[in-house]
Amino acid sequence: MAGVVGVVAEYNPFHNGHLYQLQQIKEMYPGETIVVAMSGNFLQRGEPACLDKWTRTRQAISNGADLVIELPVLACVQPAERFADGAVSLLAALGATRLVFGAEHQEYDFQAMARQVHHVHGQFHKYDESYARSFQAAITREIGHPVDQPNDLLGLAYAKANYRLGEPLELVPIQRVETSYHDETLHQGAQIASASAIRKNFADDQQATPAKKELLAPYLPADSLTDLLTERFVSWDDFFPLLRYRLLSSQIPHLHQIYGMTEGIEYRLQEQTQRLPGDLTFEQWVKKVKTKRFTYTHLARLAVAVLLNISGAEVKDYNQAPYVRLLGFDRQGREQLAMVKKTCPFPIYSRVSQDDKKKQLAVDYRAGKIYQLFNGSEQDLKRAPLYFN
Amino acid sequence: MAGVVGVVAEYNPFHNGHLYQLQQIKEMYPGETIVVAMSGNFLQRGEPACLDKWTRTRQAISNGADLVIELPVLACVQPAERFADGAVSLLAALGATRLVFGAEHQEYDFQAMARQVHHVHGQFHKYDESYARSFQAAITREIGHPVDQPNDLLGLAYAKANYRLGEPLELVPIQRVETSYHDETLHQGAQIASASAIRKNFADDQQATPAKKELLAPYLPADSLTDLLTERFVSWDDFFPLLRYRLLSSQIPHLHQIYGMTEGIEYRLQEQTQRLPGDLTFEQWVKKVKTKRFTYTHLARLAVAVLLNISGAEVKDYNQAPYVRLLGFDRQGREQLAMVKKTCPFPIYSRVSQDDKKKQLAVDYRAGKIYQLFNGSEQDLKRAPLYFN
Repeated sequence: MAGVVGVVAEYNPFHNGHLYQLQQIKEMYPGETIVVAMSGNFLQRGEPACLDKWTRTRQAISNGADLVIELPVLACVQPAERFADGAVSLLAALGATRLVFGAEHQEYDFQAMARQVHHVHGQFHKYDESYARSFQAAITREIGHPVDQPNDLLGLAYAKANYRLGEPLELVPIQRVETSYHDETLHQGAQIASASAIRKNFADDQQATPAKKELLAPYLPADSLTDLLTERFVSWDDFFPLLRYRLLSSQIPHLHQIYGMTEGIEYRLQEQTQRLPGDLTFEQWVKKVKTKRFTYTHLARLAVAVLLNISGAEVKDYNQAPYVRLLGFDRQGREQLAMVKKTCPFPIYSRVSQDDKKKQLAVDYRAGKIYQLFNGSEQDLKRAPLYFN
Repeated sequence: MAGVVGVVAEYNPFHNGHLYQLQQIKEMYPGETIVVAMSGNFLQRGEPACLDKWTRTRQAISNGADLVIELPVLACVQPAERFADGAVSLLAALGATRLVFGAEHQEYDFQAMARQVHHVHGQFHKYDESYARSFQAAITREIGHPVDQPNDLLGLAYAKANYRLGEPLELVPIQRVETSYHDETLHQGAQIASASAIRKNFADDQQATPAKKELLAPYLPADSLTDLLTERFVSWDDFFPLLRYRLLSSQIPHLHQIYGMTEGIEYRLQEQTQRLPGDLTFEQWVKKVKTKRFTYTHLARLAVAVLLNISGAEVKDYNQAPYVRLLGFDRQGREQLAMVKKTCPFPIYSRVSQDDKKKQLAVDYRAGKIYQLFNGSEQDLKRAPLYFN
């Protein structure tokens, strides 16, 4: 039986680096089905997706993916290890036999490393710099060298998740060819740029649209470029006034129930927000409220939890009852679905009913409604998975 | 000893009708101090004030008031009877000996009527049309004729509040000369127009500023006209996106705790809001959600409670511990203050400390911060009462 390749992605937006990854998978594993677990409208690092999940699903399928499922928001806006756990378990549930991921060090044996450090756990609610440091120290001690590049670390998190599940997936790291995750410049003559470089250059108000088109064309498949130029580009700048309003209007005991609100940070968030000048941006706000223990990304994730009003209880509910939400597939993806339908341990949603939106899918629905405030498109009700024949 | 005249007002904005009322009081009671209990930044009928409380306080004092206090938001965004209760008790506490108010029927003996119908109580959480009708039926039965004009009804509410307090105030109705409350047209050649006609014409985007200035000049004192043209004009259109966001992002049990959220209306508010097209206005929203039991004004007040996240418990707390917040005064007002300082049964706040904003003044502070999101001016901290020598 042919294998099934799992990929974890955000596609924010889908660019040439993602395209080449899918092409490489097809060369390595011809004929195998590619299943992508993709973040929905809010992403792992605590930010809204620049384009909605339907647009990004279409981009993924038209560029080579066979089946795209949504990583539910409660599994997605999470520290790396929990994010990896959620994604890997859904991919395994859908019959994936390998997990392909980009890494700074393709030569690492991630699964072997995971077996060595599986007991080194993050205290996720204290995921701060000092935690990152002690985590690194433990890894270095156990493995013999540090694992400190962002994609390597994510790879290790996938491997640990896989270990916990009994290693259903073969791990296949592939060398990252693109520029580093944090590199925000577009390199002339290159065909690959980081997603953040693309977003940053696109969001630059100094540039006219034709100039942007020319600037970004080398780095994006044609349909992605068109989407970027025609769909509503969403960012924290849109949501920040709502976050601010919620922080100002909430009572402390309610803020305290928000997922990740620990160590009394709710007092600091509210106090600082009360004092802010009116024209602050989200980025400036985070820099204003961050502390040694609450780093930029940690706070950005907390900000999404506040914005979407996600409680600790809701995260717990998800962890006890995960589910699969179909976003799109082609014929091959549909065959894969038919194959696993009966064995998948989680419910598979292809549509969201009036009942679902009040129950298991309530938080995704809420996130979709809030995203829709700026994007303008209904995200859940009456949407069927995209199908490409 | 000279009397002290109490006035209940919203001044949204301060116009010639208000000016003439103050002038009339000065003619009727020369030398007496005029104390105004004024709504803050959110008003009795469930809407934001078009100009902030500081601007409206300045207008009031420069046009004849001697002392302006804020009717706290928890006492203000209330059905007529509770609003009247809150205002009358604060005025009495500040030493007012008379209450002057406009009425459609100056000849009514409001106090005598109140003695007849003091036992006819509103079930405030069910203040709907059918309640209004049964209230009218009871009044007509007891008094012998209906009392159904808006200012007459408010007068009766003041009289009932006064009755409950042991009638500390002499009630002085004066004939309303201006056009009816609901009249939204500006009448050529007149000097008085309703506040809503002024707001409506000011907010009309079809008109250029110089044309508006000319159009509105006959109806406003010079400083009010200048304020309208130079200060940030705030309306429900500003706050509606926040209200909408809160309804979409809140869980039903939290909405249920909002003051006035009865009979399961929270389900209807959330459901209808989830279905709304993106470009709806506040007015269209209210028309969409209103029912026989939840009328326009009732829903507008509920919308303010949702926007400001006011719980039933917070209203209860206020009712058990009212307070006086000073907004401004002249020399005569200051003398009145000095006189009542020791006898006033409620705490008098002239400034809001860091501690006050977390305790007794928390909800006013929250309302101020939310108003500030659009108005841009800090409403509470570091603000001293305005003083006109």
